[in-house]
Amino acid sequence: MSDLGTRIVAGDQRAAARAMRNVDDRMPGYLDLLKEIFPSTGRAFVVGVTGNPGAGKSTLTDRLIERYRAGGRKVGVICVDPSSPYTGGAILGDRIRMTRHATDAGVFIRSVATRGHLGGLSRSARDMVRVLDAYGCDVVIVETVGVGQDELEITRTAHSTLVVMAPGMGDEVQAIKAGILETADVFAVNKADRDGADSTMRDLELMIALGTETMVASGKHRAHVVHGGAKIDALPVAAASTHEQWVPPIAKCVATKGEGIAELVEALDRHKSWLDGTQAGRARRHLRLAEELRESLRETLIEAATHALGSEIDRAVDDVEQKTIDPYTATEQLLTAFRRR
Amino acid sequence: MSDLGTRIVAGDQRAAARAMRNVDDRMPGYLDLLKEIFPSTGRAFVVGVTGNPGAGKSTLTDRLIERYRAGGRKVGVICVDPSSPYTGGAILGDRIRMTRHATDAGVFIRSVATRGHLGGLSRSARDMVRVLDAYGCDVVIVETVGVGQDELEITRTAHSTLVVMAPGMGDEVQAIKAGILETADVFAVNKADRDGADSTMRDLELMIALGTETMVASGKHRAHVVHGGAKIDALPVAAASTHEQWVPPIAKCVATKGEGIAELVEALDRHKSWLDGTQAGRARRHLRLAEELRESLRETLIEAATHALGSEIDRAVDDVEQKTIDPYTATEQLLTAFRRR
Repeated sequence: MSDLGTRIVAGDQRAAARAMRNVDDRMPGYLDLLKEIFPSTGRAFVVGVTGNPGAGKSTLTDRLIERYRAGGRKVGVICVDPSSPYTGGAILGDRIRMTRHATDAGVFIRSVATRGHLGGLSRSARDMVRVLDAYGCDVVIVETVGVGQDELEITRTAHSTLVVMAPGMGDEVQAIKAGILETADVFAVNKADRDGADSTMRDLELMIALGTETMVASGKHRAHVVHGGAKIDALPVAAASTHEQWVPPIAKCVATKGEGIAELVEALDRHKSWLDGTQAGRARRHLRLAEELRESLRETLIEAATHALGSEIDRAVDDVEQKTIDPYTATEQLLTAFRRR
Repeated sequence: MSDLGTRIVAGDQRAAARAMRNVDDRMPGYLDLLKEIFPSTGRAFVVGVTGNPGAGKSTLTDRLIERYRAGGRKVGVICVDPSSPYTGGAILGDRIRMTRHATDAGVFIRSVATRGHLGGLSRSARDMVRVLDAYGCDVVIVETVGVGQDELEITRTAHSTLVVMAPGMGDEVQAIKAGILETADVFAVNKADRDGADSTMRDLELMIALGTETMVASGKHRAHVVHGGAKIDALPVAAASTHEQWVPPIAKCVATKGEGIAELVEALDRHKSWLDGTQAGRARRHLRLAEELRESLRETLIEAATHALGSEIDRAVDDVEQKTIDPYTATEQLLTAFRRR
């Protein structure tokens, strides 16, 4: 193993920081490093945090770090920030809040900026999670700004996806539209001391109930509402299926006051147990790994093709523009040329 | 040419409808049909309409149809709807409003549902636009729900992208975050009779001014405000650069009352002239075509690789899961196997 790899696995923070930069910038040798450290990964629990801007994700993440640290867990955080191609800079916003953990050697925070290309960003995030995993983090939090399809794709690199909502933000409709329900493993209704929190909870419970009913037509499922330690059964449940199928629990939180965080951590841990301990959970992990490999293959293919075909692609674009060929035939010809190369 | 192709080019509406279904469902032979009709495309002006839910996109699209029809133009509309993988159904919502055009033979409206995969959807939209183009539409409107990165990607299949905003929706911040500014060719501030319309206009003008200044450091640019036929110069302008560089105009509209629609159509037409008549405009069209070809190559590559490699991909997933190989080496091996096949 290289010196850098050895130092990462030994828990050297500066080595981890350097590796994270190399991976994010795809510096020469970054792939060899990832290959080297791969056998030392697989221990970290990866939590994706997403939700609309203003839902309080950063404050909640800050509280999660605090809670995990209190339990003696080593925490890594990757903040995925959108940035305009013009400005080039990431909007760090209230991420500043988290800097109070900067002096804690058990916390490692790093921001990644959107770089125009989506696939590249989830790949970067996934690779950086692997560095933090090898470095010895028990928990890695991947926090995204916003809740678009791209953010959801990034959180699919996590084991458990936490969707943060807040009352009165029209989140419910957005949730249906963006297909959040299919991605969320745990919901947090943050700012639960505000007006409309109960209505947000109700809408969410209904959505979950409808979703799980559609998913498994065999019976009804329970939406656990965890708040202050008390569990309320929101819906009737067919006991047999609960063990296998995961029904996203909803945690009521007031992140600014630190309320509901213990219950949220517990809900995430339960999801981890489900992933590790059930057939359905293991099947999901397998599926996610298959997705990763396909995505990675897709990107490697286009990179290799672009490299192999060089200016032939540009020539094809000119030809299509001149209408001497249609784009469909042009694509087929490029494919054939690439495979023969 | 096939019978179906001939009928489409001759302007047979039922043939166009059938072709649209075939293309959307990727029925056998759909590619041959697209190749056939390609020489008959390139005449339609394609307008992408995007913006947050609630900004009034559907009503505005409805008014655009009305206006284009009054000018004797044949109009096609493709509504891109997100849908949950669970329900399978598209949320058509207030699209119903547009059905008043259903009896007009000069209007062709069709909805497409999100099918989990994003790339697939922009490809479908682009191919369906080609059918409507060959069928003889003068204008094709591609309307998306929401304004996420995926929607923006879809509107990149259009010649001109119209971003619809409404006062008091926090659109401004969202706009910066989602990188709308880079994609928008024309802005419409709808519901302009509401409180906060002026503040939305100001924020937008500032954003555009900052954006164009960053884009071309050579001078300041004008944000045209078109409203009721009067043009207000929002910012000082270096006259020389305006001809080449496109500065997104802002149209103030009240779609429900039909106000500002003529100005909006005029702004879109001016953008079309810019695309056709300037070096910068033609360069952009070329760039978009290059993007299409690359995207199409990417998808064709992964399809071909999946087909050629078959269960080898599944075996690689198993191996990575067992940690007998790392995902990076596994990807490289799959790539090599595919190229040798």
